[in-house]
Amino acid sequence: MLSQPALADAQLDSAMKNPANWAAQAGDYANQRYSDLKQINASNVGKLQAAWTISTGVLRGHEGSPLVVGDTMYIHSPFPNKVVAVNLKDQTYKWKYEPKQDAAVVPVMCCDTVNRGLAYGDGKIFLQQADTTLVALDANTGKVVWSVKNGDPKIGETNTNAPHVFKDKVITGISGGEFGVRGRVTAYDIKTGKVAWKGYSVGPDNEMLIDPDKTTTWADGKVVPVGKDSSIKTWQGDQWKIGGGTTWGWYSYDPKLNLMYYGSGNPSTWNPKQRPGDNKWSMSIWARDVDTGKVKWVYQMTPHDEWDFDGINEMILADVSVKGQKVPALVHFDRNGFGYTLNRETGALVVAEKYDPAVNWATHVDMKTGRPQVVSQYSTEQNGEDVNSKGICPAALGSKDQQPASYDRKSGLFMVPTNHVCMDYEPFRVEYTAGQPYVGATLSMFPAPNSHGGMGNFIAWDAGTGKIAWSKPEKFSVWSGALTTAGDIVFYGTLEGYLKAVSPKDGKELWKFKVPSGIIGNVFTYEYAGKQYVGVYSGIGGWAGIGMAAGLENSTDGLGAVGGYKDLAKYTDLGGTLFVFALPSN
Amino acid sequence: MLSQPALADAQLDSAMKNPANWAAQAGDYANQRYSDLKQINASNVGKLQAAWTISTGVLRGHEGSPLVVGDTMYIHSPFPNKVVAVNLKDQTYKWKYEPKQDAAVVPVMCCDTVNRGLAYGDGKIFLQQADTTLVALDANTGKVVWSVKNGDPKIGETNTNAPHVFKDKVITGISGGEFGVRGRVTAYDIKTGKVAWKGYSVGPDNEMLIDPDKTTTWADGKVVPVGKDSSIKTWQGDQWKIGGGTTWGWYSYDPKLNLMYYGSGNPSTWNPKQRPGDNKWSMSIWARDVDTGKVKWVYQMTPHDEWDFDGINEMILADVSVKGQKVPALVHFDRNGFGYTLNRETGALVVAEKYDPAVNWATHVDMKTGRPQVVSQYSTEQNGEDVNSKGICPAALGSKDQQPASYDRKSGLFMVPTNHVCMDYEPFRVEYTAGQPYVGATLSMFPAPNSHGGMGNFIAWDAGTGKIAWSKPEKFSVWSGALTTAGDIVFYGTLEGYLKAVSPKDGKELWKFKVPSGIIGNVFTYEYAGKQYVGVYSGIGGWAGIGMAAGLENSTDGLGAVGGYKDLAKYTDLGGTLFVFALPSN
Ligand SMILES: O=C(O)c1cc(C(=O)O)c2c(n1)C(=O)C(=O)c1cc(C(=O)O)[nH]c1-2
Ligand SMILES: O=C(O)c1cc(C(=O)O)c2c(n1)C(=O)C(=O)c1cc(C(=O)O)[nH]c1-2
Repeated sequence: MLSQPALADAQLDSAMKNPANWAAQAGDYANQRYSDLKQINASNVGKLQAAWTISTGVLRGHEGSPLVVGDTMYIHSPFPNKVVAVNLKDQTYKWKYEPKQDAAVVPVMCCDTVNRGLAYGDGKIFLQQADTTLVALDANTGKVVWSVKNGDPKIGETNTNAPHVFKDKVITGISGGEFGVRGRVTAYDIKTGKVAWKGYSVGPDNEMLIDPDKTTTWADGKVVPVGKDSSIKTWQGDQWKIGGGTTWGWYSYDPKLNLMYYGSGNPSTWNPKQRPGDNKWSMSIWARDVDTGKVKWVYQMTPHDEWDFDGINEMILADVSVKGQKVPALVHFDRNGFGYTLNRETGALVVAEKYDPAVNWATHVDMKTGRPQVVSQYSTEQNGEDVNSKGICPAALGSKDQQPASYDRKSGLFMVPTNHVCMDYEPFRVEYTAGQPYVGATLSMFPAPNSHGGMGNFIAWDAGTGKIAWSKPEKFSVWSGALTTAGDIVFYGTLEGYLKAVSPKDGKELWKFKVPSGIIGNVFTYEYAGKQYVGVYSGIGGWAGIGMAAGLENSTDGLGAVGGYKDLAKYTDLGGTLFVFALPSN
Repeated sequence: MLSQPALADAQLDSAMKNPANWAAQAGDYANQRYSDLKQINASNVGKLQAAWTISTGVLRGHEGSPLVVGDTMYIHSPFPNKVVAVNLKDQTYKWKYEPKQDAAVVPVMCCDTVNRGLAYGDGKIFLQQADTTLVALDANTGKVVWSVKNGDPKIGETNTNAPHVFKDKVITGISGGEFGVRGRVTAYDIKTGKVAWKGYSVGPDNEMLIDPDKTTTWADGKVVPVGKDSSIKTWQGDQWKIGGGTTWGWYSYDPKLNLMYYGSGNPSTWNPKQRPGDNKWSMSIWARDVDTGKVKWVYQMTPHDEWDFDGINEMILADVSVKGQKVPALVHFDRNGFGYTLNRETGALVVAEKYDPAVNWATHVDMKTGRPQVVSQYSTEQNGEDVNSKGICPAALGSKDQQPASYDRKSGLFMVPTNHVCMDYEPFRVEYTAGQPYVGATLSMFPAPNSHGGMGNFIAWDAGTGKIAWSKPEKFSVWSGALTTAGDIVFYGTLEGYLKAVSPKDGKELWKFKVPSGIIGNVFTYEYAGKQYVGVYSGIGGWAGIGMAAGLENSTDGLGAVGGYKDLAKYTDLGGTLFVFALPSN
């Protein structure tokens, strides 16, 4: 008999069910980023106007979104990770929490000092600080209830991900794939902060919480047990110990299956020659039991990564119609440029197609083996060390990076903010030193050639057929998370700083507004006192904006992003503000 | 015969005449901050909405306003004093100028790293950097045309004031009254940057450009020549050399009289015992010939200052009706709490009345001598060193500080953003060391007792009678500059971050909007493509906001302002953005 499963967090559950709240980063457990609110709709969104604004007092990149529970909004900031509880009535501050963090963590954050937001549950607000401290704050007072250390910045471990509340656990990941950090997710008890379980991405079976006989993967056209030492035997010697596979994305949860889903990142180093083998389970989609952490299934998208196609992008849970049949699906837009549809119960691969036509590093994904078919011209492994492999699409930051997509429950289409960027990639030999960058490649990035000249598209995706329904070109990568609403609108922000509302039917622009700084935050919505609001953080940064955020100027600095995005400085400047919009009162 | 007077700057003159532009910090030479634009008016201002926004990328206090000339807006920032030229059409950047300044200047700026804005003229944009470098930029390209050093930060000389273009001169001041800096204004040739003339506030007649026989002052109920050594003989020994009287305010200019007007600041140190005498001409209103710098007249408001009632506040030029007669007036709201009306041609004192009823340090200004009658209880000189004089009103930051008032041409009333703050003041002996603070007093500040509990009022002032027409209480000091328009509106910002539109008739609130950070900038307006816009910088700081801006926490830090304004942290946070508002399109 199974042990008694934990109950769902009642407060979060009920808060999430009421669309007036925005109680979790994605609005729900399924990562759908869809709201039932429709006071703001396609025919009146043209009148949308800024309702109120708040400065965070921090300049660098602002990712994630605030949370709204009842009459309170919880606002976070990038490092130093301030938290402010704001009364929705009059925008005064209920409380502020300002952690003291050692600034020594800043240089070990690969891609700006971002923070992807807070979690709510059990009357608490959870903050995952950059220095890996996970803090539980009383939602009413801001007082610290408990606090734990989730890692060690001295060996390059940091945190940028939002914690996630699933049932009686607060679940968090780790960053540091560029420092040889060994990825894992850790579940903490929501009441006490005690470790409930910890599951690594690479290493011995027991440390990954993999059961060689019960944990399955997709191979040979079917779901099969992974077998013994499925990770270790794909690494040379002890390399898995500094093997990466970090876990800094947005997790989702299926209460019925009691499974949580997330992706693991790139293997360390970026020089593939130094780490022969498939490097499992970096670059993989994971399904874990929330109570025990045990792995139900795992699927590796990019075996033996040669391009930093870090697999952490979110898994969106939805029922997708495939060839006339409803599949309990997980939809994932990977950095590698393929949009994956899997059966989330079994881990069976259903669809894997390019969601940006520029993708050239692989011809297709072999549906039997689940492996992408690499084009040798773009294999940095085959071309070898100190050889510059040119014109690889997408660039290391992928056809999509952390910017989460949204699901349109009405049309069944996925609304995806994408990058349209290619790269030259030159791997080189690198020594591991704890706490030092362990990158091993020089990159430069540029807009996808022979296209519209821009670096991004906002697309609608049919996950059942693996086809782009429509695509709206953007000058820069769309680094902000999308929101679809029952008002027949999809919102997203641009790096120049426009918040846009477009039609989910055809991408037609319905409205836009220029916020002070480029947008890398995620759009959210809530209702207060009978009025619907839509909000977003403004504050350029993240990997795409690292040049501005960190004041870098050489093209290949910022892991290669500085050159590609240098034109951003002609459009926007740093600055962190929250913008909230509503329809005029009369 | 007089030498040929220089001509007005044709470009500035014509730009200023067109209300579509905002070509000078006050909109005009007279410092009226009044606009003829009236598309936005009292009946539709309730519909005003944010049109677009831009982040400056700088966190600390944002004073002044952008300039608008034709289709370009010129935006400045606090230290490091970036300048951006923005296309009004699409808010893209035409050019950026980012000076490299030694950050060593920051600790010698007394009251935040503010900058009060740019000047326009002769096809150039003039930037007065914090490190005292005055730069002329080509308005079209942002290229440096010339650049000069106006002072030396090593001895505490800095700049926060906007430069002013009057005719063929760029005129600038100096800050550092808290460092024993000897105040002066300097006129530079607009074409070359060569010094045209320099006039000190204290010292020998020839260095002040004072003619003992021709320069007049108000005494004994009439205007009389100042006589020989009018400054030097009011100082002990060489003390005038470190005597203060800095000049960091907003200057005005009367083209017909060819006179410019400005105020000089406090004598150094703040400990009055250390500098016996009237300390002339600190704390004075000055009228200088723009071509030669020669002083036409000078009037000292606060002889032998004992409270830091720094006299730099702006002079507003308007014809004021006094007892049925039109007086070519200069109206000035001094830090000392008196509103002065003088005849700007002659320097004759016409009216001097309290514009905040809380003012208690003097009973009144003797209209014959022009001297305030000090209440001994509040005389920090009489109470002596190391004695805490309590309950002095106003506090050192005055009933008004740098925040400029506006004039309502329709009603003839002045719209004045004020402080409603009192203080305890304890002078102590201090040694002068070049480049080190030379303050000599410990202060604490608090809301005016037995009043509405707030720290500010926005008032309408009748400069002919010296009476408050109406007064609107505010929670915090109103540190933002006002704008009156022909649309029967007066705009101002609050430290909590509300931009407000009120009726100049009675102060009734017509509209407000919460910008991201507290407002210490000045409201401005312009028209582009047939549409009127109203804008303001958001970005808390300045002396009132120094606690947040500089991260200070002790109540008496920030020259005594930190304690008084500590509640600001419950309402707002740092961040520099420009907000531009307009009426909806349909
Ligand atoms: O390997 C890692 O641990 C790691 C961490 C992070 C992060 O924590 O932000 C990023 C990445 N990798 C990364 O590859 C990446 O593209 C990236 C983009 C961003 C961002 O916030 O814009 N973070 C990260
Ligand atoms: O004596 C000086 O030279 C000097 C300079 C400044 C300045 O340059 O900002 C201020 C003051 N004094 C001052 O007394 C004062 O109240 C003040 C307020 C502010 C401000 O910007 O909020 N600056 C200054």
